[in-house]
Amino acid sequence: MVDGEAVSGVLRGVGLGPGDPGLITRRAAAQIAAAETIAYPALAGGDSLARAIAADLIAPGVREIRIDLPMTRARAPAQAAYDAGAARIGEVLATGEDVVCLCEGDPLFYGSFMYLMARLRPRFSVEVVPGVTSLTACAAAAGLPIAARDAVLTILPGTLPDEAIRERLRGADTVALMKVGRHLPRLRALLAAEGLTGTYVERATLGAERVLPLAEAPEDAPYFSMILVVREVDPWT
Amino acid sequence: MVDGEAVSGVLRGVGLGPGDPGLITRRAAAQIAAAETIAYPALAGGDSLARAIAADLIAPGVREIRIDLPMTRARAPAQAAYDAGAARIGEVLATGEDVVCLCEGDPLFYGSFMYLMARLRPRFSVEVVPGVTSLTACAAAAGLPIAARDAVLTILPGTLPDEAIRERLRGADTVALMKVGRHLPRLRALLAAEGLTGTYVERATLGAERVLPLAEAPEDAPYFSMILVVREVDPWT
Repeated sequence: MVDGEAVSGVLRGVGLGPGDPGLITRRAAAQIAAAETIAYPALAGGDSLARAIAADLIAPGVREIRIDLPMTRARAPAQAAYDAGAARIGEVLATGEDVVCLCEGDPLFYGSFMYLMARLRPRFSVEVVPGVTSLTACAAAAGLPIAARDAVLTILPGTLPDEAIRERLRGADTVALMKVGRHLPRLRALLAAEGLTGTYVERATLGAERVLPLAEAPEDAPYFSMILVVREVDPWT
Repeated sequence: MVDGEAVSGVLRGVGLGPGDPGLITRRAAAQIAAAETIAYPALAGGDSLARAIAADLIAPGVREIRIDLPMTRARAPAQAAYDAGAARIGEVLATGEDVVCLCEGDPLFYGSFMYLMARLRPRFSVEVVPGVTSLTACAAAAGLPIAARDAVLTILPGTLPDEAIRERLRGADTVALMKVGRHLPRLRALLAAEGLTGTYVERATLGAERVLPLAEAPEDAPYFSMILVVREVDPWT
């Protein structure tokens, strides 16, 4: 460091857990409560789930950097949103102040934090506080051991095409199908064709949580839903 | 419920996270602090990692049920230990008092809680508080996004035989090899044969944490170590 040069702030990616504010870790809670600047994703024109989970910890007067993500499957508008968000975060970090990025679930598990990290890591220090994932929150809601002993656990986005899902289901031990949403009827049919069924978990820990046998799951599943296909080992031995 | 019959207590499986007490969730902390009876696994004749993680939350005078697990790969002695532990927990639950079971990581993710749950669920209510897993703690330590967009994440116990591991590595996106320990040289060779390498993470959040390229990992890895093989997506798009 050149003599007299300011020390940059740290980019903190802080996992908030699956939705219930009680599932925020003590370290995440402390970092959020102490933050001078927070950043979080939001659906353009709508609410930020991340901010809502952490709401009870956000001190009045904190600087807030809201990253509005466009509601489209095209990548370019999201890319532009991350570029703009990273630029605003970078300005704060350059003054020597930390920025706490609020991340649903865990920052590095199907999250958007990686896009900010990639843009800012070349210039700034990054620290990540891991969080409870929706995966184990769904297992807890369903009371299902998702990984036991030497079982292989495969985590499969339900957005994948039929053939990719079929291939992964064959010979799998336990499978968690994430991002179910509107893909539910298709995924249920793919499982049935392989002689499999599972447990459907909707909105785990988010309020209005539901756990149902897959056969009884609604055709119009919400985005925050998961299917667990568990090959249980004999827990008595 | 028959009139006048006592209401049974609830068996609470509480995830403690990967080791750093700061990664205990607020709900887990509240349940441990309020517990009248706690139960936890320990290595026979040795310490309990679970109890050590939660130590700052355990009130003086709490009843403690220690489940000593034998240091052997044979199943019968462990089975007998869970039988005995479940019987002692069941006696407390029958009086109407809850029992808080301390679980390293997440109770239903490669944990021992499932063995107690199986024995007690036929008679008692069970509630699980999910915890941060060693999986995302290792990702955080290494600064590696382990699951992005439509990537498939395969979680593979390093204790599996060669052929099972080889088969799962082929065509995988991101692979997390858990329970590495003494299997490290064998796993490194299996990865190399498939043209893969990875990142080695030792004792994530447990103190003396280390992150190394797999090529530089020690031959005598400790039990709490993991290998992450990440196929990174382009985070700029």
